[in-house]
Amino acid sequence: MNLVKTKDYDEMSRVAAAYLLGYLTEGYERRVNLAITGGNTPLKTYEYVRDMMKGAPLPNVHYYNFDEILVKGSEPATLSSLRELYFEPCEIPENCIEVFHEGNYKEYDKKIAEDGGLDLVLMGLGSDGHFCGNVPETFDDFGLGCRSIDCRMTEHLKELIAGASGGEERMPDTFVTFGPATVMRARKLILIVNGEKKADILKKALEGPITPMVPSSVLRLHPDITIIVDEEAAQTLDF
Amino acid sequence: MNLVKTKDYDEMSRVAAAYLLGYLTEGYERRVNLAITGGNTPLKTYEYVRDMMKGAPLPNVHYYNFDEILVKGSEPATLSSLRELYFEPCEIPENCIEVFHEGNYKEYDKKIAEDGGLDLVLMGLGSDGHFCGNVPETFDDFGLGCRSIDCRMTEHLKELIAGASGGEERMPDTFVTFGPATVMRARKLILIVNGEKKADILKKALEGPITPMVPSSVLRLHPDITIIVDEEAAQTLDF
Amino acid sequence: MNLVKTKDYDEMSRVAAAYLLGYLTEGYERRVNLAITGGNTPLKTYEYVRDMMKGAPLPNVHYYNFDEILVKGSEPATLSSLRELYFEPCEIPENCIEVFHEGNYKEYDKKIAEDGGLDLVLMGLGSDGHFCGNVPETFDDFGLGCRSIDCRMTEHLKELIAGASGGEERMPDTFVTFGPATVMRARKLILIVNGEKKADILKKALEGPITPMVPSSVLRLHPDITIIVDEEAAQTLDF
Amino acid sequence: MNLVKTKDYDEMSRVAAAYLLGYLTEGYERRVNLAITGGNTPLKTYEYVRDMMKGAPLPNVHYYNFDEILVKGSEPATLSSLRELYFEPCEIPENCIEVFHEGNYKEYDKKIAEDGGLDLVLMGLGSDGHFCGNVPETFDDFGLGCRSIDCRMTEHLKELIAGASGGEERMPDTFVTFGPATVMRARKLILIVNGEKKADILKKALEGPITPMVPSSVLRLHPDITIIVDEEAAQTLDF
Repeated sequence: MNLVKTKDYDEMSRVAAAYLLGYLTEGYERRVNLAITGGNTPLKTYEYVRDMMKGAPLPNVHYYNFDEILVKGSEPATLSSLRELYFEPCEIPENCIEVFHEGNYKEYDKKIAEDGGLDLVLMGLGSDGHFCGNVPETFDDFGLGCRSIDCRMTEHLKELIAGASGGEERMPDTFVTFGPATVMRARKLILIVNGEKKADILKKALEGPITPMVPSSVLRLHPDITIIVDEEAAQTLDF
Repeated sequence: MNLVKTKDYDEMSRVAAAYLLGYLTEGYERRVNLAITGGNTPLKTYEYVRDMMKGAPLPNVHYYNFDEILVKGSEPATLSSLRELYFEPCEIPENCIEVFHEGNYKEYDKKIAEDGGLDLVLMGLGSDGHFCGNVPETFDDFGLGCRSIDCRMTEHLKELIAGASGGEERMPDTFVTFGPATVMRARKLILIVNGEKKADILKKALEGPITPMVPSSVLRLHPDITIIVDEEAAQTLDF
Repeated sequence: MNLVKTKDYDEMSRVAAAYLLGYLTEGYERRVNLAITGGNTPLKTYEYVRDMMKGAPLPNVHYYNFDEILVKGSEPATLSSLRELYFEPCEIPENCIEVFHEGNYKEYDKKIAEDGGLDLVLMGLGSDGHFCGNVPETFDDFGLGCRSIDCRMTEHLKELIAGASGGEERMPDTFVTFGPATVMRARKLILIVNGEKKADILKKALEGPITPMVPSSVLRLHPDITIIVDEEAAQTLDF
Repeated sequence: MNLVKTKDYDEMSRVAAAYLLGYLTEGYERRVNLAITGGNTPLKTYEYVRDMMKGAPLPNVHYYNFDEILVKGSEPATLSSLRELYFEPCEIPENCIEVFHEGNYKEYDKKIAEDGGLDLVLMGLGSDGHFCGNVPETFDDFGLGCRSIDCRMTEHLKELIAGASGGEERMPDTFVTFGPATVMRARKLILIVNGEKKADILKKALEGPITPMVPSSVLRLHPDITIIVDEEAAQTLDF
């Protein structure tokens, strides 16, 4: 586990962007498979990437969304977030966007393997310790792969998914996510974490027991994980 | 997870030796750090390695024993097993043998990191699902690193360690082992498994839930693990 | 440049086989592309490989012959040498044997690139300093790729090719070879050299100027070349 | 050889910076050894790197200047160029700056090897085809390593070095440079080339014969070289 401490959100974003740019340049040489997070944490990371690569060729880099909520009467939540934050500003061609959804999740671990495996998964850390859609009390086995989950499985999950759907009335019955095993099979993991509000859960994830109750705790078993944090998030860590 | 199915113990041993020989040749180019298992399973693997490399220079390859029992009135159990099976036949110089024991286990994860990390851990699978000294019912957190364990912690553990010590009267109070996190941090894992008597536990380890009750189940979360099995051990696997 | 000094032909062969076995095991994990030499030097290397891998699965390893002489009234010289020495004893499936000849040499550099590039080229050293079919006085540019050469271009070349064809009457008009640039693009080069009769040319190749007059001198510009020699061949080297 | 075509100097600089940033992030994980060029071509590349990494920790990345002119009555030319363009803006600590000069060039190839070898050499292309200080008509063997050269060896060389020294009166008698073999041993090469005035020499370097008369022609024998060009420089290339 490699912990990179940065001063603040801006520096965290620049360092994360630098890592991502390194993978993008590998796309000039060979096929590269990335799964990158939507949401708020990577916002500035992706702005830096866009500023560096806008208009430049980015061939052979394929993007895999690691979860998806098919919001009723709207666009799929993760894909539309990624389109806005990353795919459109960075001018990613459509054929480089691999789509994961209710219709293909059963075969998706196999598809990833056939595509050569994931080179990198870039994730944020949920305040409850979740990564991708692996939320506490919705699973008890780190061996799970890609799967579909009942959005009402727990009250907490319902609130999370309803929020991401823009209201419970637009929430579908199920959503899909990479399981822990899907993520752990990637060659490299990066977790970006910032802000005081993440300090407690980060400490649990990195220093507490490895348990499905803190899903992201399992990530530190990966032999090549880098965790990029700002000072606020890192303030209570022992090291 | 990469499963290599072989016909029998001899073929399993030849394939495992071929993997090991690949790492040994890297030792001509740079430092290589290996942790290899003692015991019965690798016996023929090491014979094949010895036949290929006997008398040849094997520089820059360092060996780390991944557990140790300081048997009373005798040599340390793991080290003496490795000396007999591998270090002496393969003429490994003393300065390439890194020793792990009660006196240094607290600093050992740090030492391994400073040495550049482990390139490979070659392990067998215990009939109870243990790997290294991680035995069911002696731990419940896959986040543990190198540690010392009370040999009498459970009745089953006591029997195992007493057996490995040549009798309970020679068994020490504690023994040391790499924890699951120590092993998972290595760049490559190889598990060798043969024989009908291992078929059930192998199926649990590879296809059952990931749980400390089947310690080796965690290994399949490693992004670069190869499991070399013979037909007898693999007979009940689904794939 | 990494020089591995061994005692004799047997030890050279065992070390070369160990390198090759390392690449073969990678074939359990991903596609591997190898170009390996025919001729006398690798005879014992291939015997050791066969003893280790006979009957074992060797999937995803593709073989590229790096030169070819379409002997009149007989089998292609390089391919039939490789069949006898390696493909048949090691039970290599036909679809893993990539064939290079007069009919495809113009597109072969492109084909290799599209196949993912060569992982390893294992070569011997000609007494005149040639590697593959790159013979002194038949070229003056290390930038050349795959090409067809007039077998009578020089008297020395004619003798070499006639010898390899089993007599001048069976020699074709042209033969094909990987050029220096084809070989240099591979990710790893191994050169095996044994015997007193190779000592002078080895010294020139490793310590003399880099010049097309000693074709193999260019190989030491490769960032990942290993040269495995026995004591007799190495006796006049400075280091 | 991997050719990355960009529209203009700005895009070339952004792509080159992205490559460099990828290597800098590896410095969070392990020691990284870079040799980067001074001069005008990389000016904007380094500005982009500085904007991304300013104030961020850049540990374990060591810098090697690949040539040096000990200008009379002034600072060493290459080192002072790098200090201004890169080391100071990017806040590189002094202990990460490895200095190459007349006093240590004889042992420098050995030092680089002992330091673990160069991960990357980032170079520009001279209008005469030179790279580092390897100037046409000053050498005829690509096997040369680090060396000292008489600044007056040829009239053309004298003009170049006098220019870089700020006048012939400040030019020393000799200067030092990595030789072709030093550069070729690096694991990765990047060449950045922009502007119409480089179009002819770029075509010679990439498509003409490999000859000491066009020193950079040898670089395309490296198995992992990336050449980043703008449209003006690339306009006469065949591919």
